[in-house]
Amino acid sequence: MVRAMNEYKYQSLAKRLINKIEQGLLQSGDRLPSIRQLSSQYKLAKVSVQHALHYLEARGMVEARPRSGYYVTAVIRQTQPKLDSKFEDKPGLVEVPNIFHQIMSKGAAFDLCPLAPLHDHMPHTQFLHRFISRAQRQDSRRNAVYYSPPEGDLRLRKQIQNHYKTRNCALHEDQVCITSGCQNSLFIALMACCNPGDTIAIESPAFYGVLQIAQQLRLKVIEVSCSAITGLNADDLEKIIAKWPVKACVVTPSYATPTGACMPYHEKQKLADLAEKHNIYLIEDDIYGDLGFTLLPEPLKRFDRRGNVILCGSFSKSLSRDLRVGWISGGSLHDKVIHLKLVNQLSCGQAVQTGLASFLSEGHYRRHLNRYRQQLRQRRDNLVQALVQTFGSEVSYTVPEGGLALWVELPPNLDTHKMYLPLLAKGINITPGVLFSSQRRYLNYLRLSFAHTLDKHRKNALSTIKQHIDGLYMSPKSD
Amino acid sequence: MVRAMNEYKYQSLAKRLINKIEQGLLQSGDRLPSIRQLSSQYKLAKVSVQHALHYLEARGMVEARPRSGYYVTAVIRQTQPKLDSKFEDKPGLVEVPNIFHQIMSKGAAFDLCPLAPLHDHMPHTQFLHRFISRAQRQDSRRNAVYYSPPEGDLRLRKQIQNHYKTRNCALHEDQVCITSGCQNSLFIALMACCNPGDTIAIESPAFYGVLQIAQQLRLKVIEVSCSAITGLNADDLEKIIAKWPVKACVVTPSYATPTGACMPYHEKQKLADLAEKHNIYLIEDDIYGDLGFTLLPEPLKRFDRRGNVILCGSFSKSLSRDLRVGWISGGSLHDKVIHLKLVNQLSCGQAVQTGLASFLSEGHYRRHLNRYRQQLRQRRDNLVQALVQTFGSEVSYTVPEGGLALWVELPPNLDTHKMYLPLLAKGINITPGVLFSSQRRYLNYLRLSFAHTLDKHRKNALSTIKQHIDGLYMSPKSD
Repeated sequence: MVRAMNEYKYQSLAKRLINKIEQGLLQSGDRLPSIRQLSSQYKLAKVSVQHALHYLEARGMVEARPRSGYYVTAVIRQTQPKLDSKFEDKPGLVEVPNIFHQIMSKGAAFDLCPLAPLHDHMPHTQFLHRFISRAQRQDSRRNAVYYSPPEGDLRLRKQIQNHYKTRNCALHEDQVCITSGCQNSLFIALMACCNPGDTIAIESPAFYGVLQIAQQLRLKVIEVSCSAITGLNADDLEKIIAKWPVKACVVTPSYATPTGACMPYHEKQKLADLAEKHNIYLIEDDIYGDLGFTLLPEPLKRFDRRGNVILCGSFSKSLSRDLRVGWISGGSLHDKVIHLKLVNQLSCGQAVQTGLASFLSEGHYRRHLNRYRQQLRQRRDNLVQALVQTFGSEVSYTVPEGGLALWVELPPNLDTHKMYLPLLAKGINITPGVLFSSQRRYLNYLRLSFAHTLDKHRKNALSTIKQHIDGLYMSPKSD
Repeated sequence: MVRAMNEYKYQSLAKRLINKIEQGLLQSGDRLPSIRQLSSQYKLAKVSVQHALHYLEARGMVEARPRSGYYVTAVIRQTQPKLDSKFEDKPGLVEVPNIFHQIMSKGAAFDLCPLAPLHDHMPHTQFLHRFISRAQRQDSRRNAVYYSPPEGDLRLRKQIQNHYKTRNCALHEDQVCITSGCQNSLFIALMACCNPGDTIAIESPAFYGVLQIAQQLRLKVIEVSCSAITGLNADDLEKIIAKWPVKACVVTPSYATPTGACMPYHEKQKLADLAEKHNIYLIEDDIYGDLGFTLLPEPLKRFDRRGNVILCGSFSKSLSRDLRVGWISGGSLHDKVIHLKLVNQLSCGQAVQTGLASFLSEGHYRRHLNRYRQQLRQRRDNLVQALVQTFGSEVSYTVPEGGLALWVELPPNLDTHKMYLPLLAKGINITPGVLFSSQRRYLNYLRLSFAHTLDKHRKNALSTIKQHIDGLYMSPKSD
């Protein structure tokens, strides 16, 4: 098999298969040849074939069906070339306009219609409550008079260690510190590795929470243009490091918000190597890491040898936003991280940690995830279908293989930020693209969430957005 | 009545009464003349007499008995002149040695023997649990998918507003933001009003949590020498403001840790006026404000006219350390405070806030406080008695009228920091004085907590400390 220079074998196989799918030689629902067949056909090691299939899976082009093989996915993928833009920035301080804060605090609701009735079946919440309630009863007196240690409850830290084993990542319990959520972990991580005035690299588009932390800690940011499918590219980051004094890079390798991009296995490895070589910190936002629909992708932390990777995660997206329990594994800065946790908020609640530890140790978290990931995938498909029905070819969008949201590109003359208030007045809560950049990029983009069942309220909301856009075109004052 | 220049009328009456108590003309248990009698005897307005009595009460020299009058308190107070030291510092960055962090995280346990069995009767904890558990059940699905707003639950904020009314302080619900505890509030407060390199004034001795925040935020601190009885003196602060570019002052006006000092009513007023005049922020640590044994003292915030006072509080010391619920009222910086809360940790748990709001609205918090404040007073008396029995006249100490701890001065050649590890090896957890200063002051001091019942384990711990000290004197190498 002929392959380009600097290309891994698996990449060249992946390209071939993508070509076949794009040319229609392999169609939706078609079963791919088996790993054994592909291996002999292309004269590749099985492990390379597997990587190629994982790569296609991460791009949402094929799906694994247990005990059956790989199939071309049912939903027709857009090739979305428009979604990727290339640019070169200089580092600069972040200025977040005040109106954005309001949008951001609502945007965290991750819902088009937060006031609509809840239809989602969530058997795990009552179950989870029972565990926490029991923990509250059992040690209520002791918990009332003693703070939990700043690094958090040992049993919970052990459970988090065990959980990361399922994702191929060895994480010692002493390297886990409990926080009150992933935002809190990211805040602590950036305080631990940066001083005011330092430069950090961020993905573009980036999670807006990171932009806000950078603003408050007076860090300069430089945006790295990312693929909406495969996320951050290590080579692109290296060029920026060569040019600017980058101290750390914040990255969401697995199902980044807003795009849902997932970095391929080798790209993660390359990024970790790069951080080691240039002695910079990688702050890994792993909040969606457990929400891969078919894969449970390796975290970046798995490739960390010298403690350059600071892993941040939380149960908020995977279990409940009411827990306020996250974690951070600080690498070479872990002692400092624990101290910052103490200084920032002393400790987290003990009962909720104990309850969670039991919930995890009895396997309920894993069982919930297995159910939930299937649900989310179905909800993604429903949302994509509704997008096609409502907008036709007017929009392009990502079709992520994990996470909670997708990234929608509207025609270039539209400004979703200007649509925010008129739509809010109609009870619709959109998350405008401009929130995801410090450079007023992505004006014609939207993040849409599939965290909720696509009920009639949300379908109507999509229609209302479409009508609003049509109205803008008809209005002579549209700009 | 002859009074010194610059002295309020109530101060001169208070002095006279103190003299009578110290000379034995008024003895423990004696009933003071009524307010009406004192008013006519000294030709003073009733309000001045009341202030004088409040002042004596704050100093622990008299106590109010409902529907009966004021009595000289039963415990014999030391005059403790040695506890107050005067000094002049320059502002400087804080360096907290690493070993201190460990002591501090243990010190937060507020207990001599943290592993001893719990004897304290705490009926409120189960009751509180029932409210929170009910809240968890009722809205578990909605709470699982939506974050609480960054400023916190409206019902809880209203309850906090109502609660401050009982302390004579009007606080609008829109001026209350929920945090995850008082340490978190202080962290946010200092981030809101200072930039790295700015100078803040702190009490000396000061709460060590504030020293650690200053270190992390790279703030310079200047210590203001304080009275162990009446806390910060506004005139002393004014001299420092005249000399140094002070941006903010962190102060615990009501039952400061470690001394238990309580600022008199007029001194609070003076301090608030001073902040307004010089345009500095006062960060009020009100965590012990609900724990006055006889008084519920006015917070500093009550005297705030232009938003210079940032009030920080929590339910941790008064209700349960497991709640992780505190609050902050940011004055003129309140919008920034809410934004920092969002950036720092997005939101707090919804169920715990709802449960607390119900607990408060049904009057359970007030009932619990009434019981608990009596308990604490009894525990303080027991600890003072044990101190006298164990150490005789070797130590002097404060006898606070509220809070959870008192401040013990050992002979000047002792260093409590050096006693820390040997005593820890015996299962005894002391909080050395050096933690409460950035200038290696208070080497021969200890903070002792009366948050717990003085059981045989804690009595034995005091004896072990005494034996350890005696051993140091006998050892030729003691230094």
